[in-house]
Amino acid sequence: MVSCSLESLDDKIKTFGKFGDTGRGGVTRFSLSAEALDARAEFKRRMEAIGAKVVTDDMANMYATIPGTETLPAILSGSHLDSVRQGGNFDGVLGVLTAMEAAETIVREGIPHRHPLTVVVWTNEEGARFEPAMMSSGVICGKFDKAAMLDSVAKDKPGYTFGEALDKSGYKGSEANRMSPDKAVALVELHIEQGPVLENEGFDIGVVEGVCGMINFEFTFTGQAGHAGTTPMKYRQDALYAAVKTIQYLHDELDELDSRLVYTTGKISCHPNIHTIIPDEVKFTLDARHQNPKVIKQVLEIIKKIPSEVEKCRVSYSEAWSRKSVAYTPELVDYVEKSANEYGYSNRRIYSGPGHDAQYVVDVIPTTMIFVPSVGGHSHCELEYTPTEACLKGANVLLRTLLYIDGQ
Amino acid sequence: MVSCSLESLDDKIKTFGKFGDTGRGGVTRFSLSAEALDARAEFKRRMEAIGAKVVTDDMANMYATIPGTETLPAILSGSHLDSVRQGGNFDGVLGVLTAMEAAETIVREGIPHRHPLTVVVWTNEEGARFEPAMMSSGVICGKFDKAAMLDSVAKDKPGYTFGEALDKSGYKGSEANRMSPDKAVALVELHIEQGPVLENEGFDIGVVEGVCGMINFEFTFTGQAGHAGTTPMKYRQDALYAAVKTIQYLHDELDELDSRLVYTTGKISCHPNIHTIIPDEVKFTLDARHQNPKVIKQVLEIIKKIPSEVEKCRVSYSEAWSRKSVAYTPELVDYVEKSANEYGYSNRRIYSGPGHDAQYVVDVIPTTMIFVPSVGGHSHCELEYTPTEACLKGANVLLRTLLYIDGQ
Repeated sequence: MVSCSLESLDDKIKTFGKFGDTGRGGVTRFSLSAEALDARAEFKRRMEAIGAKVVTDDMANMYATIPGTETLPAILSGSHLDSVRQGGNFDGVLGVLTAMEAAETIVREGIPHRHPLTVVVWTNEEGARFEPAMMSSGVICGKFDKAAMLDSVAKDKPGYTFGEALDKSGYKGSEANRMSPDKAVALVELHIEQGPVLENEGFDIGVVEGVCGMINFEFTFTGQAGHAGTTPMKYRQDALYAAVKTIQYLHDELDELDSRLVYTTGKISCHPNIHTIIPDEVKFTLDARHQNPKVIKQVLEIIKKIPSEVEKCRVSYSEAWSRKSVAYTPELVDYVEKSANEYGYSNRRIYSGPGHDAQYVVDVIPTTMIFVPSVGGHSHCELEYTPTEACLKGANVLLRTLLYIDGQ
Repeated sequence: MVSCSLESLDDKIKTFGKFGDTGRGGVTRFSLSAEALDARAEFKRRMEAIGAKVVTDDMANMYATIPGTETLPAILSGSHLDSVRQGGNFDGVLGVLTAMEAAETIVREGIPHRHPLTVVVWTNEEGARFEPAMMSSGVICGKFDKAAMLDSVAKDKPGYTFGEALDKSGYKGSEANRMSPDKAVALVELHIEQGPVLENEGFDIGVVEGVCGMINFEFTFTGQAGHAGTTPMKYRQDALYAAVKTIQYLHDELDELDSRLVYTTGKISCHPNIHTIIPDEVKFTLDARHQNPKVIKQVLEIIKKIPSEVEKCRVSYSEAWSRKSVAYTPELVDYVEKSANEYGYSNRRIYSGPGHDAQYVVDVIPTTMIFVPSVGGHSHCELEYTPTEACLKGANVLLRTLLYIDGQ
């Protein structure tokens, strides 16, 4: 059975890890930064070396295409080259490198394919410097207004916009080059899981069925400040204690729902946050994710049951943002599973918690994703790691899935 | 029955409220600041106008003394003129103004007294610019090392020490002028309650029996960061949830102790404090106060029962600081109560939650305190307020108490 090359994939991972290397096992490679442009140049050079034609669209998304034997729309695979600050060597970039590896293997082994094969690099998936995340796949899939995106200002440089960075990058191309249903038949994106499930349960491959729906709420508790030493307990309106009781309530109730629900209070603030003052305002967030919109609705009902007053403190909350559950294309999901089984790689179906470019693309063309394990579940940090052997399994499943799509 | 003057006291409150006036009902009057020096000059001027001799000691504590009919040690009364940032017009300064009012009334009415009467102003009670609080009463009562205090650096001006501020103030006097047992027979300090008890329960006067002992602990919970969308609940080590469970445990257990116990979690920090990341480190404080050391010991026992691991997170804690319970001199406490009763002022015995200069002085000479109500329990803020009528009751009780001491 045909296999991608461990040495070649390992070389790619090591080479791309140099672009923005933090020296501590990770990279800082903001979209369109000098480091990211170096990575793009290396991508272009390597793809052209195997006979690919490289074009970019008006959002600097890159498409490197090797021709097929017939005049057909292309099969796409890829991800992104940008990272968060002090991110890892696998989030995003591995989806590009495995797609390159699959294309190289097809060329090297002379595997016949009817469709052109396009390795795609999406611009600014992380939104680490210019918000929002998944900006450029979002623009071409009709999720974001392009003019608003061009005006997005760098978090670290007042007044410097994404539009200016785009103009300076040298990678701004034509709107006519955008991925579209008439030019593309499907997309497969490989990604690290960014969580501990595959590793903990001993699976090689995650057959991604979709992306969890999510809600994010911010709660505010308003009490009355008072001196820690002079206010008897019975007179207190302690906003932190009201928040603590509510976090406990949320845990108690949410734990009763489907066990695949994940929910997190990751952020809390307390005012005035002085050890001798009873807090008068506390805020915290609740992020909840599940693949089934019915479960998300149950979460909302639990939130709605929070009384307007807890421990004599006023309670208010608002939805900061939300995302509907996304299902990938069932036929493609089946191809991924079948491919993994053919190689004898253990696999399980899984939903993605984080968002990916593929979730926007699925609204335009058939799309799915492949996960490989994340050691320790680490992601968005320098500890992020997946052994090359595990990445190779993902590349092989990707290669086989692309050929299934080609043959359909 | 002799009474202090409402008009005169009101004039004092209004006049001293101009020194550092924030324009929003409060003052910012850091110790030895230009505003505080103006207040000191006004104090000196007014005390000299009634025949007092004003001296300062080496920590710039001020002593304004009117002679008695016999050669005896003086009876002291006073407090401090400095405030916190955006503090109120009553904390500290009212103890100085009522002592001035009592002395003026004695002079005006020609009330005979055997002992000299000294109105005292302690330097840097708040510690708002130069830490610690109660610095100068602490130095002369042997609580702090003077050299270390002189080296205390301004929080807002790197390298600028309390010693330099003292030298520049013009109020640095002789060590020989310090309050000492051979020169002083007793101290009575009037203060606002800084809490809601007297107002809520309808009492005019708090007969202060002592200052609550206190402990202050900092707890640290160490878990494992993870992505909010990818880490199943069963794999989590959520440091914030571990902290929430522990705060709830502390409330449940501490609520079973004596109802006069007050305890507060006023400060909490969360790392990395991002709504999509499971927190890996959370710290919070616990401040607990009670007049009875046995109850404080029970609090310690409850803390010791916290397991070393909560919700799979490591728990550690340490005592940040503590203070032993202080009892004021019983004879003087009785005088305060007797005086309030003579005027027909409703009163109750009470313990102070916050610390005051008097708690250091009681180790050197007989000492007690008088509380007047704080409207809404507000203190250390511009909302701090006590009507002049209520302050006058305090001044009268103070006057009568000084005369009881004089007669003993």
